Amino acid sequence: MKTTALEPPSINTKRQYDREALSAYLKRSQVKVDQFLDDWLPKKEEGLLYEAMRYSLFAGGKRLRPILCLAAFEAPTGATNGQLPLVAVEMRASLRQSVLSLASSIELIHTYSLVHDDLPAMDNDDLRRGLPTNHKRYGEGVAILVGDALLTAAFTLMAEQGRNTVSSERVMEAIFELSSAAGMNGMVLGQLIDLQSEEKKKLDLNQLETIHRNKTGALITASVRIGGILGEATDDQLKRLTEYGQKVGLAFQIADDLLDVLGDKTALGKSVGQDEIKDKWTYPRLMGIEKASEMAHQCVVAALAALEPFGAEADPLRWIACYTIDRRN
Amino acid sequence: MKTTALEPPSINTKRQYDREALSAYLKRSQVKVDQFLDDWLPKKEEGLLYEAMRYSLFAGGKRLRPILCLAAFEAPTGATNGQLPLVAVEMRASLRQSVLSLASSIELIHTYSLVHDDLPAMDNDDLRRGLPTNHKRYGEGVAILVGDALLTAAFTLMAEQGRNTVSSERVMEAIFELSSAAGMNGMVLGQLIDLQSEEKKKLDLNQLETIHRNKTGALITASVRIGGILGEATDDQLKRLTEYGQKVGLAFQIADDLLDVLGDKTALGKSVGQDEIKDKWTYPRLMGIEKASEMAHQCVVAALAALEPFGAEADPLRWIACYTIDRRN
Repeated sequence: MKTTALEPPSINTKRQYDREALSAYLKRSQVKVDQFLDDWLPKKEEGLLYEAMRYSLFAGGKRLRPILCLAAFEAPTGATNGQLPLVAVEMRASLRQSVLSLASSIELIHTYSLVHDDLPAMDNDDLRRGLPTNHKRYGEGVAILVGDALLTAAFTLMAEQGRNTVSSERVMEAIFELSSAAGMNGMVLGQLIDLQSEEKKKLDLNQLETIHRNKTGALITASVRIGGILGEATDDQLKRLTEYGQKVGLAFQIADDLLDVLGDKTALGKSVGQDEIKDKWTYPRLMGIEKASEMAHQCVVAALAALEPFGAEADPLRWIACYTIDRRN
Repeated sequence: MKTTALEPPSINTKRQYDREALSAYLKRSQVKVDQFLDDWLPKKEEGLLYEAMRYSLFAGGKRLRPILCLAAFEAPTGATNGQLPLVAVEMRASLRQSVLSLASSIELIHTYSLVHDDLPAMDNDDLRRGLPTNHKRYGEGVAILVGDALLTAAFTLMAEQGRNTVSSERVMEAIFELSSAAGMNGMVLGQLIDLQSEEKKKLDLNQLETIHRNKTGALITASVRIGGILGEATDDQLKRLTEYGQKVGLAFQIADDLLDVLGDKTALGKSVGQDEIKDKWTYPRLMGIEKASEMAHQCVVAALAALEPFGAEADPLRWIACYTIDRRN
């Protein structure tokens, strides 16, 4: 089942887009993130707040952002662990634990944004991933607090890690990246412009791109960058990872819009055609299905090109780029 | 004009509660924090989000939490700057700039909590410091986003500082303290219990203390602790500062409740008797005015006792303790 009207591009002559390897990689990484968050958060029996936080956090998210972070962490190495001296292997194992914490904290931020975006004063959604939204289940007051708690918890988790890790400077960079991407010059700004745009009769492509660059693109790009920073990427590598993140973020958004038109209700876990019903401005609406598909395809091509100098360690990132336009939900 | 039925306690035989010195200290510190935040935040002309953030941030707050942080930073030194070697003076000046950033970030957190608490789904307040609340002025959707943006900005500001400061480990500690106090085991939890308690017919003193310890106490205590951590307090000093913060936080809350009964509308900038109208459980309601006054007084006595081994550098902290029960708003 294709999302867009086009097949994913081939990676290059040496590497192939391996759907099976990707599927196993996604599953494995998702389990790691879920397990970590489940261990880290207070149990739901400990109080309503924790129950309500867990309700939205464990509602079946794909964990795309943490997985991008984990994948980007591995990309700059250029050597498998077996070839490293023992001390480096140990340091890397410790770093890998750090990156799992930090990657998981990104999911806390992502989930908070969904809970707040669904509120009646925002997008006013009743369903999310086939379940009642947080405020439908727990009431509006609790849902606002759940979002606040998830957002704040992300920074507790990061700082906790920063106190123990081998490089607190890099963790500090990660906190800076994440809060910048999530806040008043990133995700929150994007949501505000989106909120304001609802009053407008027509949005142009530029305005739509501004919304998505901030609302979804910034956090996806930050996820990749944080992985790269913790993986000790060089300046050039980090620049390339940033380019990759921006293109994948845009491809992901366009594909989301296309799924709302072309997708399958059961696979999506939500009704299709919602954007049209809600009179939302989307890429297919502004450009047509064919051109929007072509644009998503071009983004994936550009994302793959940005990764050109990286070795086999970057293959999961490559597969994820292809996957953004090759998914059912 | 006294808040409580009792005079503030005398500090000890050597030191006096100096209302004039305190007033000058509060004013000077408030100007510093306001100036810093005004410089740091995007201007209101740059967009609605920034305008709405500034609307609540510059609505005349006392900056008590940042000031406690600044004062606690000075407390452990035990030597005036003039007696330190030059390199230590320079380091201290750099640290002082750091502590101003971190102290100011606490005010961003405090303001976010006020904006969200005022929302219709929470306390549903129309007025704050004599002005329409954020959602009354900008609408509910914007107010939710303003809170989210202020909360997130606090961590950007801290991390930005952590990248430059002489001790990124201590800044990391500060981020941990602040996010822990503000989040699911602190302020947000307190607000949730408060929200739930509205359905209850009667609250006992224990339950009221749990709410306030989390809802207001945790952030006040963290403010003092962060100052102490950055001021390189010893373990014993930090323990004492923590005790001070807890007692001052409680005294402050009881005094707030008393002001609502005994206070003057003009000085307060809001109507008196609101707690009774809203059927809120308060210390005077549960204990009577006299016993609540006595309890606030005892908290101040205990806060002063905790500071006993500190020198003159801790005088602003001492004065602030007395001021909590000796104020008009």
